[in-house]
Amino acid sequence: MATTAVSFESISPADFFYRNRSIAGFDNNMRALYTAVRELVENSLDACEDGGFLPTIKVKLSEVSPNWFRLRVEDNGIGVPRDHILPAFGQILYGSKYEHKQARGRFGLGGKMAFLFGQITTSEPLQVVSAPSDGEHIFDVVLRQDIEENKPELVKWERRKNREKKHGCTLEFTLEGNWRSAKRYIIDYIEQTALITPYASLTFTEPDGTAHKFKRSVKVLPPQPTPVNPHPKGMDIEQLSRIIEDTKTRDMVTFLRTHFHRVGPKTAKAFLKSINMAYSQDPRGLKPNDLVKIARGLEDFDKWLPPDARVLSPLGTKLLELGIRSTLNPEFVKVTQRPPNSYGGHPFIVECGLAYGGDVPMKESIIIYRFANRIPLIFDEYKDVAAKVIRAVPWSRYRIRPGMPIAAFVAVVSTKIPFKTAGKEFIADLTELEYDIRMGLMECARSLKGHLRQKEKVQRERVRASVYEKYLPIIARDIAALAGRRKVPDTKTLIQSALSIKLEDEEEEVLPPPAEEGILEANPPEISDSEDSDEEETEEE
Amino acid sequence: MATTAVSFESISPADFFYRNRSIAGFDNNMRALYTAVRELVENSLDACEDGGFLPTIKVKLSEVSPNWFRLRVEDNGIGVPRDHILPAFGQILYGSKYEHKQARGRFGLGGKMAFLFGQITTSEPLQVVSAPSDGEHIFDVVLRQDIEENKPELVKWERRKNREKKHGCTLEFTLEGNWRSAKRYIIDYIEQTALITPYASLTFTEPDGTAHKFKRSVKVLPPQPTPVNPHPKGMDIEQLSRIIEDTKTRDMVTFLRTHFHRVGPKTAKAFLKSINMAYSQDPRGLKPNDLVKIARGLEDFDKWLPPDARVLSPLGTKLLELGIRSTLNPEFVKVTQRPPNSYGGHPFIVECGLAYGGDVPMKESIIIYRFANRIPLIFDEYKDVAAKVIRAVPWSRYRIRPGMPIAAFVAVVSTKIPFKTAGKEFIADLTELEYDIRMGLMECARSLKGHLRQKEKVQRERVRASVYEKYLPIIARDIAALAGRRKVPDTKTLIQSALSIKLEDEEEEVLPPPAEEGILEANPPEISDSEDSDEEETEEE
Repeated sequence: MATTAVSFESISPADFFYRNRSIAGFDNNMRALYTAVRELVENSLDACEDGGFLPTIKVKLSEVSPNWFRLRVEDNGIGVPRDHILPAFGQILYGSKYEHKQARGRFGLGGKMAFLFGQITTSEPLQVVSAPSDGEHIFDVVLRQDIEENKPELVKWERRKNREKKHGCTLEFTLEGNWRSAKRYIIDYIEQTALITPYASLTFTEPDGTAHKFKRSVKVLPPQPTPVNPHPKGMDIEQLSRIIEDTKTRDMVTFLRTHFHRVGPKTAKAFLKSINMAYSQDPRGLKPNDLVKIARGLEDFDKWLPPDARVLSPLGTKLLELGIRSTLNPEFVKVTQRPPNSYGGHPFIVECGLAYGGDVPMKESIIIYRFANRIPLIFDEYKDVAAKVIRAVPWSRYRIRPGMPIAAFVAVVSTKIPFKTAGKEFIADLTELEYDIRMGLMECARSLKGHLRQKEKVQRERVRASVYEKYLPIIARDIAALAGRRKVPDTKTLIQSALSIKLEDEEEEVLPPPAEEGILEANPPEISDSEDSDEEETEEE
Repeated sequence: MATTAVSFESISPADFFYRNRSIAGFDNNMRALYTAVRELVENSLDACEDGGFLPTIKVKLSEVSPNWFRLRVEDNGIGVPRDHILPAFGQILYGSKYEHKQARGRFGLGGKMAFLFGQITTSEPLQVVSAPSDGEHIFDVVLRQDIEENKPELVKWERRKNREKKHGCTLEFTLEGNWRSAKRYIIDYIEQTALITPYASLTFTEPDGTAHKFKRSVKVLPPQPTPVNPHPKGMDIEQLSRIIEDTKTRDMVTFLRTHFHRVGPKTAKAFLKSINMAYSQDPRGLKPNDLVKIARGLEDFDKWLPPDARVLSPLGTKLLELGIRSTLNPEFVKVTQRPPNSYGGHPFIVECGLAYGGDVPMKESIIIYRFANRIPLIFDEYKDVAAKVIRAVPWSRYRIRPGMPIAAFVAVVSTKIPFKTAGKEFIADLTELEYDIRMGLMECARSLKGHLRQKEKVQRERVRASVYEKYLPIIARDIAALAGRRKVPDTKTLIQSALSIKLEDEEEEVLPPPAEEGILEANPPEISDSEDSDEEETEEE
C-alpha cells in the first residue's frame, strides 16, 4: 500500500496574507500601488474623523529608482498612542476595536498589507511619526514586520516633546509599483475622495512633482456615527454565545433589552413568547439547543423595530451637492437622501445625485460615481448594483438621452456594506438597495426633467425670437413706408412682450429656476410619471 | 481639543475569517452550501492522490430541517494521522505543508471555513472518522472550533483497531443552506469534476435521495507531481531571507544550485557576475542591500532555464478525451496538450479540447468547460481568460458557426494558478496563458474543421446521390425503352461508382476519418490558415 508522509504546519496570519496577498488587493505592482494609497488615505480620514478634526491629508509619491516608489501620507488625525504604535503597524489582525458603527476600514488589514508589500519588494522598513492627540510626546519610530511570527521588529524609537501640540500620523515607506498603469486609478481615486469628503483638504503629489490640490469647501464635519448594540436580525450562534458569555443580566427580558438594538420590554416579551421561552430564564443557563432556538427565532421574528440610523453618518445633501459643484461645476445638480432602510439587521442610507452640463463630459452613457461609506469605488463598475439600476431606469421618460453630459452619484452608507468581493470594489444587488437607489435617482431625474424642459423652452423661444427679430423690423419698416409713416414702430418691445420668457444674453448661463420642485408640482402629473409616484408611496410602510 | 479614546484589540485568524467569511466563499446560504461541497470534495481528491489511491468519494446531502442540511463526505484517501486530527479540522491556518507543487487546495482554509459556517449557523459539532493509511487505528472524533482562540475543542475521541485495513476520512456536519439555489451549481460542479477526474468514482446524493453516480472510466492515476525548489524568477525578499536563514551552504554558487530550480554552476556563476557578486560570498554574510540586489537580479536576469514541468500533473490527452467522451458522448472530440510554459517563474501547462455533437447541446455560443488544477470553475465564466480567448478565435475560418453543438474545454495546471480573486473562480488574462489557450483551441479547431468538411462532403454527396437515385432509374428505363431494350441497366452500381465517397446508412454515425491531421496536410493550406501556422512556428523559441 502506497503511503505518503504528509507533513503539517501552522502559519501566522501575517504569513497567510503574505502568501495570499491578492486577497487584500496586492496581486501585482499596479494594483499594489493603488491599494497602498487608498488604504492609507482611508485610515487617515478615519483617524481625523474619530477625533472630530477637519482632515488635512498630504499624499506624496516619489520614484526612488525605476519601479521603486516612496509613499508618504501625512494626516492631522488622533495619532496612534505610544503603546499601540508597534502592534498597530507591525502585527496583522491587530487594530482599533471592531464596533457596530460605520467605518471606512475593516480590520486595519489594508495598511499593514501595504507595509508588508513594501518590505517584501524593497526590504525597506516603515517610518512612523505619531503625535497622539491626547499625549505630550511625538514618537519617531522605524519598524519592520516579522512575517513568520506576525510581530513587529523595532528598528528605531525616539521620543520628543510635542511643543507645537500637533496631532496626527505620518507614514513613509518604499514599495515596488507600476505608476504608469496605476496613475489614472490613483488620480480618479483622489479626485472622487475629494468630492465625497468636501470637508477635507487633500493634496496628492505625483512622482514628477505635479500636485493635485483639493481645498475643503466647507468647514463642518458631518455628524459622527454613534456605536450601538447589534440588531437582533442577522445574529449568528457564535455572536450570541459571545454576548451570553459576557452578560451580567440574569433574565431573558433584561438580556434582550440590554444587548440588542431597539429592543424594549414589550418586543422582548413578544419575542420570548414566540419561541416559548420563559421571561425569567437565566441567560447563563441556556443550553446549545436553546441557542439554536434563539438564533433561528431572532431571524424569523417579524416585529423587530428597524435599525436606527444614528449609527450611520451619511454625507448629507448639502455637502454632497457642494462636493459635486466644486468638482464638476455643473449647470444643474439635484441630490437627494433616501430615508433610512435596512437589510438583515444592517441599516443603510442611500444618497443619490444627478449633475448636468458644466465640466461633466458628454458620453454615450451616464457617468457613474459610486461611493460606499465615503470610499470611492473605482474598479468593476459594471458589476455594481448602481450600474445595474442605472441600466434599468427609463431615462427617456425624463427627457434624458444618450450623449447628454450627465453624471449620476450613488453613495451608500451602512454598518455593513454588502460588498460582493473582499476587494471592496462593488456592491451586491440586494433588492432593498436597488429599490432605494432607483427611487433616489428617479427623484433626481424628475428635477432634471424640469430643468431640461425649461431649457428646451428657452431654446424654442430663442428660435422664435430670432425669427421675429429678423423679419419684424423689415415688416415694420415696409408697412411704415406703405402707410407713409416716417417713424418705424419699436419692434423690440413688441417681441419681448410676445415671448413668454425673458431672453438672456447668449453668453449667460441658463440657471435652473429657483424651485424646480414647484414647477413639477404645478403641472398635472404625466401618465408616465404616475407609476413612480405609486412606487414612492408604497415605500412608506 | 476633541479626543476620542480608540481602543485596540488583537483577534485570532479564526475570528478574522469568521467576520470576513465572504473572503472564503461563505457570503450567503446558497454560496456556502456550494463552497462546502466543493472544498470537501477537493480535499478528498487531494488526500487520495497523495496516497496514490484511485479516489472513491461519496457525497451525501440530507435535509434535517428546513434550510438545515447534513453534509457527509467519505473518501479513501490517506486519512489524517492521529496527532493532526484536532488542529487539522479545528485550527485555521494549520494544514499540510505548503510545498512548491501543484495542488487543488490552498492552505486548507476552505474545509475549516465550511465547518465554522456549520457551527455558527447550527451549533452542531463536526464528526470525523479518520483511518490513517499508515496507522493501525481508526479514530472517531467529534470536535468544535473555539473561534475566539482559534483552537479545536474536543467533544468525543474514540479509537478502534483498523481490522479491515481501511484508509480515508469521513466528515459529517450540519450547516444552514439554500439547496434550491445551490442545486444547479453543485450538480454542475460534481459532473464536471467527474469529467476532469475520470479515474475517480464519484457519487453525489441529493436531499431527495436522487443519486448521481459517476464510475471511473479508467484505472490509472495521472503521474503525480514532484515537489521541486522554487524557480529563481518571481522570488521576493521575504522568501529569499527565509531560504538564507535555513541554508547550510557557505558560498553563493552552491547556495543558488542547492535552493533554486534548474540552476547549475554555469547559470549560477553567470548570474553572480551579472550582479557583481563574488562566487565565494557566504550567504550568511549577506546584508539587506545585498538581498535587494539579489532579488532584483533574480527577476531581471534573462538566462534562467524555464521551469520543469515535472512539478505539474496535467490530466493528459487520453484521460481528458475519455472524460469528455464518457460525459458528453460526442460525435467528434479532439484534445491537445500544449508544451510546458511559464509566467514569472511559475510553470503551467494548458490542455484544450473541442467536442462536437452527441449530447453537446446546441447553443448560440460555444459551451465552455474550465478547469484549474483539475477543479471545475463554475462561476464568473465571462470574466475568465478562456472566455476571452474563445470570443477572439476566428471560428468561421474553421467552418464553426453559432448554433452548432460545440463544447470547448480549457484545463490549466500550474504551481500557481493566477486566479483574479480569492474566490478561485476565474483566471486572469496573462499573455502567456492567452497564447497557449489560443494555440490549443485552434489546433483542435483545425481537426474539427476536417471533420466538418468531411461531414459536409458526405452531406453533399448524399444530396447528389439522392438526385441520381431518383432520376437515373427513370432515365435508364426510358432510354432502355427507346432503344427497344428489355433489360434496364443497373444504375445502382453506376451511382455508387460515380460518387467519390461510400454512402453510409442514415442511422449510422459518421465517424471521423482515422487521421484528421493527414487530410489537412494533404490539402494545400488555405490562405486564411497560413496565419495560424506562422504563429504556431514562432512559438518554438
